[in-house]
Amino acid sequence: VAYHLSEFVRRFGGELKGDDVAVAQVATLEAATASDIVFVGSAKYAAKLPDSAAGAVILAVDMAKAADRPCIIATNPQLYFAQLATLLNPTPRPAAGAHASAYVAPSAKLGKDVSVGPFASIGDGATLGDGTVVGAGCRVGDRVTLAAGCRMYDNAVVYADCQIGENTIIHANAVIGADGFGNAWTGSAWFKIPQIGRVIIGADVEIGAATTIDRGALGDTVIEDGVRIDNLVQIAHNVHIGKHTAIAACTGIAGSSRIGAYCTIAGAVMMVGHIELADRVTVLGGTLVGKSIGQPGVYGGHYPMQKHEDWLGNAAHLRRLDSMAKRIKELEHQVGAKTLTREQNNDPGS
Amino acid sequence: VAYHLSEFVRRFGGELKGDDVAVAQVATLEAATASDIVFVGSAKYAAKLPDSAAGAVILAVDMAKAADRPCIIATNPQLYFAQLATLLNPTPRPAAGAHASAYVAPSAKLGKDVSVGPFASIGDGATLGDGTVVGAGCRVGDRVTLAAGCRMYDNAVVYADCQIGENTIIHANAVIGADGFGNAWTGSAWFKIPQIGRVIIGADVEIGAATTIDRGALGDTVIEDGVRIDNLVQIAHNVHIGKHTAIAACTGIAGSSRIGAYCTIAGAVMMVGHIELADRVTVLGGTLVGKSIGQPGVYGGHYPMQKHEDWLGNAAHLRRLDSMAKRIKELEHQVGAKTLTREQNNDPGS
Amino acid sequence: VAYHLSEFVRRFGGELKGDDVAVAQVATLEAATASDIVFVGSAKYAAKLPDSAAGAVILAVDMAKAADRPCIIATNPQLYFAQLATLLNPTPRPAAGAHASAYVAPSAKLGKDVSVGPFASIGDGATLGDGTVVGAGCRVGDRVTLAAGCRMYDNAVVYADCQIGENTIIHANAVIGADGFGNAWTGSAWFKIPQIGRVIIGADVEIGAATTIDRGALGDTVIEDGVRIDNLVQIAHNVHIGKHTAIAACTGIAGSSRIGAYCTIAGAVMMVGHIELADRVTVLGGTLVGKSIGQPGVYGGHYPMQKHEDWLGNAAHLRRLDSMAKRIKELEHQVGAKTLTREQNNDPGS
Repeated sequence: VAYHLSEFVRRFGGELKGDDVAVAQVATLEAATASDIVFVGSAKYAAKLPDSAAGAVILAVDMAKAADRPCIIATNPQLYFAQLATLLNPTPRPAAGAHASAYVAPSAKLGKDVSVGPFASIGDGATLGDGTVVGAGCRVGDRVTLAAGCRMYDNAVVYADCQIGENTIIHANAVIGADGFGNAWTGSAWFKIPQIGRVIIGADVEIGAATTIDRGALGDTVIEDGVRIDNLVQIAHNVHIGKHTAIAACTGIAGSSRIGAYCTIAGAVMMVGHIELADRVTVLGGTLVGKSIGQPGVYGGHYPMQKHEDWLGNAAHLRRLDSMAKRIKELEHQVGAKTLTREQNNDPGS
Repeated sequence: VAYHLSEFVRRFGGELKGDDVAVAQVATLEAATASDIVFVGSAKYAAKLPDSAAGAVILAVDMAKAADRPCIIATNPQLYFAQLATLLNPTPRPAAGAHASAYVAPSAKLGKDVSVGPFASIGDGATLGDGTVVGAGCRVGDRVTLAAGCRMYDNAVVYADCQIGENTIIHANAVIGADGFGNAWTGSAWFKIPQIGRVIIGADVEIGAATTIDRGALGDTVIEDGVRIDNLVQIAHNVHIGKHTAIAACTGIAGSSRIGAYCTIAGAVMMVGHIELADRVTVLGGTLVGKSIGQPGVYGGHYPMQKHEDWLGNAAHLRRLDSMAKRIKELEHQVGAKTLTREQNNDPGS
Repeated sequence: VAYHLSEFVRRFGGELKGDDVAVAQVATLEAATASDIVFVGSAKYAAKLPDSAAGAVILAVDMAKAADRPCIIATNPQLYFAQLATLLNPTPRPAAGAHASAYVAPSAKLGKDVSVGPFASIGDGATLGDGTVVGAGCRVGDRVTLAAGCRMYDNAVVYADCQIGENTIIHANAVIGADGFGNAWTGSAWFKIPQIGRVIIGADVEIGAATTIDRGALGDTVIEDGVRIDNLVQIAHNVHIGKHTAIAACTGIAGSSRIGAYCTIAGAVMMVGHIELADRVTVLGGTLVGKSIGQPGVYGGHYPMQKHEDWLGNAAHLRRLDSMAKRIKELEHQVGAKTLTREQNNDPGS
């Protein structure tokens, strides 16, 4: 289906410049053809625009001078592009109804237009809101609630009693509600501490493939509205994540930590347990967050990459920084003392 | 079901002080009501006790003076609490028998009271001990043995020929027995090295969601009794983990490494292959363990988090530590030489 | 089945020395019996050979003097061993045909000798090449192509429209083609950017358990022929990995990065987005790759492990490296100045 640029402007705003052409798909500058629309949000891409065969372009306001073909000037061109992409590429959804091979417990309650895929199983007393899509092989545990519009992709698992808000997306093989890692030491062995809390996930959340979010030990693990979590992320028991925070792949957050709203946690961040992050904190990739962060800002820390032979030389000194610091102090003492000596030495009376 | 405190004391020991009230659930200090019991193991929590509505409390011996309501004095209050929580919250288990939709190979042997969930499949010659529970969508490979009392949660997979000990728990989407990462270089491509060993897991082990434990290349990968492994942990081929060791989430252990008994490995630890850790080693979060550890103790190392602008300044110097060390040495030489010079200079004979 | 050494030589080359004995299995030096063959590629293992009960041994050319029993001298003994192991241990494969419990969409096209396991589902328009094996509980999405000889292990998922090349292996619970992590900020919330690209995987690739490879945002995510990827690896949208590159477990590669051919990426490496690695780059374990690498070589960087008390002392200084560098500079200045002063001081004219 093709849309005229004026139709985009009618729906999403922005300013049309040039002919009201029709386009049918979004594309990269390199791959675009005459029926595609591209976006240019920075000078780097504006420089490549003349070489693109795209039929139209979305331009950031300060890139408007780069217009060399029909365009829409938008204040947030990335968002505008995403809106177009969504319009042009509606998420395919399977037919409504439970697949003949699925198992739905008699006591489960299914809303309108629910789709349950092949070999998915819906537990006792589970509730699936209107329009929910459960993929092939998924397990929805007993008494789980999936609010209207949720989508679970294939083989994802939600353990018993967890609650998922409206329009939340859970990707394949994610696990929501497994037991938290709680063990008491008996003196000779670990004794499992029952994990009797739940996972409560808000609306409009997206959870990546193979990500794990553990149920609370006593209270609940909570993910607020609008949070975005990438693949292979671990969220331990009783963690609380504030609304609209984004967490990139391979990150782990230990038990009972509390992350504020509007935070950005990059990939491979590891956060210890029982700490708090204020709202609007950014943590850069590969950082170990070992204590609370009380103020918004950008935090990070990782050993910088080097050629291996250089690292070998430097790493040896890393282990002796304490001694290096003492040697500097001693030098300062000696040089200071000497300065004194020298001054005495220079004393006219000497 | 409610229990009187005296019933707890009868079962688990400890000393009852105050009225022999009945409680029905464990809770946090904040959430507790009159029918709940809480636990106080440190002064921090003792300070919050007066504000709690809990009907009873388990107190550490040295917190006994905080008793302001019916209580049990216990030497290990966390363990005591875990025991109560287990009594009050028996793990729900599905009805015995194979679900109508499950597939059980005719040659598989099922013990008494085995439960096999919807769409689980049990391979040829597999053995499921008495009371084993296999969740929805699980795959138990050919000739696998799950000893009595094991529990596999939904969509977990055990490859052919692996052996799992009694009462071991495997959480959802964990993978036991996939091929180890073994490749020989032909000169122009990788040639897959067959992985013909198995995974052998002991009794009373717990394995977290989406954790992967690879089968051995020739011999077996071995996890001894009582080990606890959190989510998203990677255990490579031929690793050996000693009994009662605990491993937190997002940790990876490379091939053929051998970890002692009673170790504690925190989250996001990465261990290279072919090394050994002694018994009772603790490794702190985010550490790269690049060599063997021969002595018990606490080991760690990670770049500390800073404000990003501070990191930028420091990281540049990190790459030049070798040169900084040389400059300090040169300074020491010069200052030492100068000291000599100065002494000569001060020589009465000059 | 046992083979004579001469049969190995006929198939794989090498030089037979001693009796043409028959062996039936490969083994480690420690576990081998008279019917096993072992391999010795280095002096370390040559020293253990006399104690092994193995019936035969594959020896590296420069270990030939260690021959104390029937042996084959091979230029690449590890590869030779792998070839023997493959011959002696053909990968078991289930019977051809779709299991009675599987679901195959009527529009899917299955080649010859395809095996589809229990509770696997094959989507509309999917194509499974000759000899493909799809494990229990797998999901093959709509219009997916698995070329001839592919193998998906249990509960692995391939999202719609992805393409997998010949003889590629995908281990259990891996997820190919989930949405990339793309979000535009509206000013108050994240707006999901549709991920309309695919994942294109070449031939002879192996992908580990619970590894996730996201589909492209606009273009495709591409894994070239012969790549080997271990468990729990995250490959973000639009990444491109060159042929015969190997990536060990727990590594993450952020969006749009491009890794060359013949690279070796060790475990727990984290790579930021939009960078390029040249061919034949080696990155050591635990490294954060924060920028492009233009030249082949060995790169790395991680904070070295220490006893925790030593780390505490050193880490404090790490945060103050910038100030340490300034103090050294100041010392050099003072000592230099003093040297001058001393020289002036020593000036005969003073």
